[in-house]
Amino acid sequence: MSQAIKAVLFEESEVASIAKELGTDSLMGKSLAKLIADTDAFIALGIDVPGHSEAGGYAHNRHKQNYQYINQAGRLFLVTGQEKYAKYAGDLLLAYADKYLKLDFHKQLNTNPPGRLFHQILNEHVFLLNISLGYSCIRHYLSAEQQQTIVDGLFQPMLDMFTEKYDFDFDRIHNHGIWAVAAVAICGLAIDKPEYVEMSIHGLKGDDIEGGFLAQISKLFAPSGYYMEGPYYHRYAIRPLCLFAEAIHRHRPELDIFNFNGQVIGKTIKAMLATAYPNGVFPALNDASLTMDICDAGVIVALGLYAKHYGIDDDILGMAKIQDTVWVNGCGQALSEAYASNNAELNPCWPSVELNEGPNGDRGAQAFIRMQSDNGDVNQLVMNYGQHGMGHGHFDTLGISFFNNGQEVLREYGFGRWVNVEPKFGGRYLDENKSYARQTIAHNAVAVDQKCQNNFDVKLADSRHGEPHFFSGDDANVQGVSAFCRDFYEGVDQQRSLLLIKHEAFAKPILVDLFRLISDEQHQYDYAVQYAGQIVRTNFDYQTHKELDTLGDNFGYQHLWNVAQGKVANESNTSLVSWLQGNSYYTWLSASSSDDEIIFTRSGANDPSFNLRSEPGMVLRRHAKDTLFASVLETHGYFNEAIEASTEARGQVTAVNAIGTNEQGSVIEVVTAETTLTVMVSNQVGVTADTENSVTFNNQTFQWQGYFAVEARG
Amino acid sequence: MSQAIKAVLFEESEVASIAKELGTDSLMGKSLAKLIADTDAFIALGIDVPGHSEAGGYAHNRHKQNYQYINQAGRLFLVTGQEKYAKYAGDLLLAYADKYLKLDFHKQLNTNPPGRLFHQILNEHVFLLNISLGYSCIRHYLSAEQQQTIVDGLFQPMLDMFTEKYDFDFDRIHNHGIWAVAAVAICGLAIDKPEYVEMSIHGLKGDDIEGGFLAQISKLFAPSGYYMEGPYYHRYAIRPLCLFAEAIHRHRPELDIFNFNGQVIGKTIKAMLATAYPNGVFPALNDASLTMDICDAGVIVALGLYAKHYGIDDDILGMAKIQDTVWVNGCGQALSEAYASNNAELNPCWPSVELNEGPNGDRGAQAFIRMQSDNGDVNQLVMNYGQHGMGHGHFDTLGISFFNNGQEVLREYGFGRWVNVEPKFGGRYLDENKSYARQTIAHNAVAVDQKCQNNFDVKLADSRHGEPHFFSGDDANVQGVSAFCRDFYEGVDQQRSLLLIKHEAFAKPILVDLFRLISDEQHQYDYAVQYAGQIVRTNFDYQTHKELDTLGDNFGYQHLWNVAQGKVANESNTSLVSWLQGNSYYTWLSASSSDDEIIFTRSGANDPSFNLRSEPGMVLRRHAKDTLFASVLETHGYFNEAIEASTEARGQVTAVNAIGTNEQGSVIEVVTAETTLTVMVSNQVGVTADTENSVTFNNQTFQWQGYFAVEARG
Repeated sequence: MSQAIKAVLFEESEVASIAKELGTDSLMGKSLAKLIADTDAFIALGIDVPGHSEAGGYAHNRHKQNYQYINQAGRLFLVTGQEKYAKYAGDLLLAYADKYLKLDFHKQLNTNPPGRLFHQILNEHVFLLNISLGYSCIRHYLSAEQQQTIVDGLFQPMLDMFTEKYDFDFDRIHNHGIWAVAAVAICGLAIDKPEYVEMSIHGLKGDDIEGGFLAQISKLFAPSGYYMEGPYYHRYAIRPLCLFAEAIHRHRPELDIFNFNGQVIGKTIKAMLATAYPNGVFPALNDASLTMDICDAGVIVALGLYAKHYGIDDDILGMAKIQDTVWVNGCGQALSEAYASNNAELNPCWPSVELNEGPNGDRGAQAFIRMQSDNGDVNQLVMNYGQHGMGHGHFDTLGISFFNNGQEVLREYGFGRWVNVEPKFGGRYLDENKSYARQTIAHNAVAVDQKCQNNFDVKLADSRHGEPHFFSGDDANVQGVSAFCRDFYEGVDQQRSLLLIKHEAFAKPILVDLFRLISDEQHQYDYAVQYAGQIVRTNFDYQTHKELDTLGDNFGYQHLWNVAQGKVANESNTSLVSWLQGNSYYTWLSASSSDDEIIFTRSGANDPSFNLRSEPGMVLRRHAKDTLFASVLETHGYFNEAIEASTEARGQVTAVNAIGTNEQGSVIEVVTAETTLTVMVSNQVGVTADTENSVTFNNQTFQWQGYFAVEARG
Repeated sequence: MSQAIKAVLFEESEVASIAKELGTDSLMGKSLAKLIADTDAFIALGIDVPGHSEAGGYAHNRHKQNYQYINQAGRLFLVTGQEKYAKYAGDLLLAYADKYLKLDFHKQLNTNPPGRLFHQILNEHVFLLNISLGYSCIRHYLSAEQQQTIVDGLFQPMLDMFTEKYDFDFDRIHNHGIWAVAAVAICGLAIDKPEYVEMSIHGLKGDDIEGGFLAQISKLFAPSGYYMEGPYYHRYAIRPLCLFAEAIHRHRPELDIFNFNGQVIGKTIKAMLATAYPNGVFPALNDASLTMDICDAGVIVALGLYAKHYGIDDDILGMAKIQDTVWVNGCGQALSEAYASNNAELNPCWPSVELNEGPNGDRGAQAFIRMQSDNGDVNQLVMNYGQHGMGHGHFDTLGISFFNNGQEVLREYGFGRWVNVEPKFGGRYLDENKSYARQTIAHNAVAVDQKCQNNFDVKLADSRHGEPHFFSGDDANVQGVSAFCRDFYEGVDQQRSLLLIKHEAFAKPILVDLFRLISDEQHQYDYAVQYAGQIVRTNFDYQTHKELDTLGDNFGYQHLWNVAQGKVANESNTSLVSWLQGNSYYTWLSASSSDDEIIFTRSGANDPSFNLRSEPGMVLRRHAKDTLFASVLETHGYFNEAIEASTEARGQVTAVNAIGTNEQGSVIEVVTAETTLTVMVSNQVGVTADTENSVTFNNQTFQWQGYFAVEARG
């Protein structure tokens, strides 16, 4: 290269180091090969800068592709030295410079201001960030005149729009705000206008309080690093956050950004990564898709950045293995090198972690408990007892999900939306997102009196949060979490305690669930289980309905068909439902009296546009004041239809006995043919690991120290 | 090895050749590595010879594993030379020799006679075949006394049982019969009792007519090689067939078995392979699982045998690639070597083929049409117009299935059964197999007057078959098939003509379906479409029901919920339903008048044990005498939720016009914004490629030569 490169995120030495990986099968080598194949295929389509279209329409998609390939081609020019990439990116930028100001603004459709290319300036921010990075990689290839044309026709008008026309939207404390400041700052670096870097870092007012990157990363995350809208939105904000942080690290080293505010950047990346299921998919907390995973481009950037600046361990390497690619950048190169020199077998199990919520970490938490089966498979429990999550919040406090054997077993429905699917309401949130997906009954939770938590009032819900009771995530054989949620239904307090117990009686850890309802009044409690697959057997009689009616008229119940129902009447005083999902059998058992009823449901009622997925579920219904739902989920056996193999289609647990529950504690028994486990859980507010517990039920006294105890006999 | 090996299917030189692959990454090397890991893990469990259990229970499964590992350990002893394998297989055989005669016969549960280890002697045949092969590999390692113990305690009693006690079941012409003769013959070879080889080859009577292997392979298959029960049962019979044939080839070379009867063995293997979808899964013709595929152990043996004795091409290599393993045997070694020396990229597309049915090939046929999209993806259409398939037959003559983009799109329900899942009726066929899965309405076919073809009368159905009309499978851009089925509903003749058309107007080949009903009386015709996924849009109004009722009371209709329905009334006179399945969009369009009605269904009604899967479907209902259902299925666009990408969510076809249909021909138009395709199909009985066709509808005359023609204008 004749001129010195001016790339915002590359130094010459890094380019040389990355270029050495071309043609190798290192993670960087594979990433480059994919990037080259992908970019070459798109370049072959020729240059096209269209006008306007609907979201999800051709022009919308093409503008998105164009910015992506300007970015990619820029990096490939540096790494491969092939002029075709610089020429392509340059030509496309010049074409935009020619056209941009000729395009009118879109019509405003929602609260987001419209751009010239996209309906929402959020997309235009993403555009600017990407093309600025690409431009900085090829700037030294362009003539001074060409550079000026691009600045005048494209970059400066965008900067003006973002920081002047829409200044009110520029540097606010919001996940979208990070895209805005990152785009403006990186553009400023790319075109040598440091004033834009300054206002992006410190806010338009320059006070680091009302806006700007430093204020954003000081205020958006809880002390644990958790982002209240959940990982789906977190991973969207993490990309500009990391890109901007890396740019600051390189161009404003005096800010020591990676140690800023107690290493908030490293902490929030790690918190996001720590939520992921063992297969890399993010639990769909709040409005989220069921498939967003760590292979998202933002997470690839974040993992590389974390590896370079905060350190590498087997958990990080395990995620790199799932990603099977790295960020084409010096950070990604560091991760690729570490991965190549690792000789250990990677079977990572991220530590169990409780991530607190709220600016001070005192507004509840999210629990992520992981325990490995003997074969190394990771069982993961997720429980929500934090904040509501604002406009995207689900009304599912104390709701859980559970994952093992490569699949979500106790399932989250996810959002009611097909992102970017234009014929499905332009890819926007569908009505059924509110009327079903966010309702309490759509979750693994208890719905009271056929209503929704906090009456589906977002403001009310945002004013509240769950109350952590205990969290114990270190032991290899028993881990547990418990939390309260008070008055989310008027006059009803709830406490849910969950334990993962590994015991020789079971092939896999069992999940024990003690869900306690406390009220002075009689209520209808619907304990809901969202499962997938085919029911194999039950231990009670039920009636399948000849005609289907809905479970109710409101709060999500109107979307559930009542498929079958039955009173739970049998000798074991335990209701049992067993199902087959994928290659695994699952058996759910719950202590039940003959007044309990189980209703088998299916979603899809009152769905005029087929916006809901048809999914099975079940409800254990009980009328009571105070009560305890004592349940066990056992994972057992193996099924493979293709090779017609089936083992252990019946589980070991034969009964669950609820011995008693009160303000001091709850005691249950989990019974198998050979063994009885007594499970004792402390309900004492303020319990610590040292608290002495003693409860007496039916003249039998149970004593233990700390949060919980498990005793086996037989 | 001190003594000469006596392995039935190995020569010393083959063993040496295979042993060289140990530790390599050839297909044979990988197969050996898997076999070693698998066998070592089982050996580590120790030896256990249990007694009786239910099918799917522990003892049942353990006996199955034991025979498998005797076989595997035997081969590994030869290849690796490690004594531990011989010792393991020998000890296990001796343990069986000690126990076998102490076990009583099971109680007889069905028409299959019971064995001492298993409920059905079929399993006991499989047992004998496997242990005979394993024994033959280690026989030279055993002392003469040990050999005698095993013969006296195990082999001879089994031979006696099969050929004397159950002689009536021994060598009959039936797919189970092949297991019997193969087991007895290979045991005879392994213990040097040639009389058992003779009776197995030529039948107990020695006449090659009433029984024995030669009679079986002469009579079980159609001239095309097709097996009337379909690939699911074919692949089960193919394993003993191949093992026995290979043994005959080695030990009775004078029979020239691989050229026997016009190379029937090669022909029937190829016919079986030619049914498979591009991903290797077999279409679920007749009672079959949806997941049985070419990775089945029998198909692995068959592919190796075919490769060695009948030749290797890209289609064979492509299947080896899917299998990613080979038969550990000289045949597999030949395939492994060919695979290793192949340098071409494998993107196989098996030729389109019409497989005739019946002993003389004149009882209808099964069509398998394949066409590649521009990106190499294989589109496969399957149409059934052959025989009923005896007790496992589905009442779905003229039914189709369609596959592309890695998934079955027009779907077969498969059987109502969970094989080996003990709590699901012992793994046997469930009632719903008859009441739903085998019924006409459960298929992609037309149900008349809410009934089943041939009134669900198996005898009647077996007496009939479809009538091939034309088949044209050579062209890269248009292929087609047509067949009649007469009087399967009383007084109603049916003709279905299907074309796959590749045209620049479409990203993928479109499927054109002309389903013609002919009757003197008015009938209700239900044209049924079995799809999967989520409905994206329709072009007509419908009413979703607030309460669900079934579609009918009988013939499968009682299992279908009527979810929503609407009259098709719009300007285009075309009903359109678009859905999203996996990563693809599909749009189905059908010429419709305002009297037509579409009913959206879901299976699962009247299903007291949750034996049915909940699956969507739709029915286009029309009341008429003669009519033509003229439909198009267009595959378009791409969706990926994880990366939130969506392109071309709307297809190109805007209307389908039925111009006319009569005894001479049918003409329709497929309309897009830019192009109109006129599709003409000959209905003349006896049509050939040279037939001149001329039909006039609405004063317009259409003329073409041969089976069909497609003309584009615009």
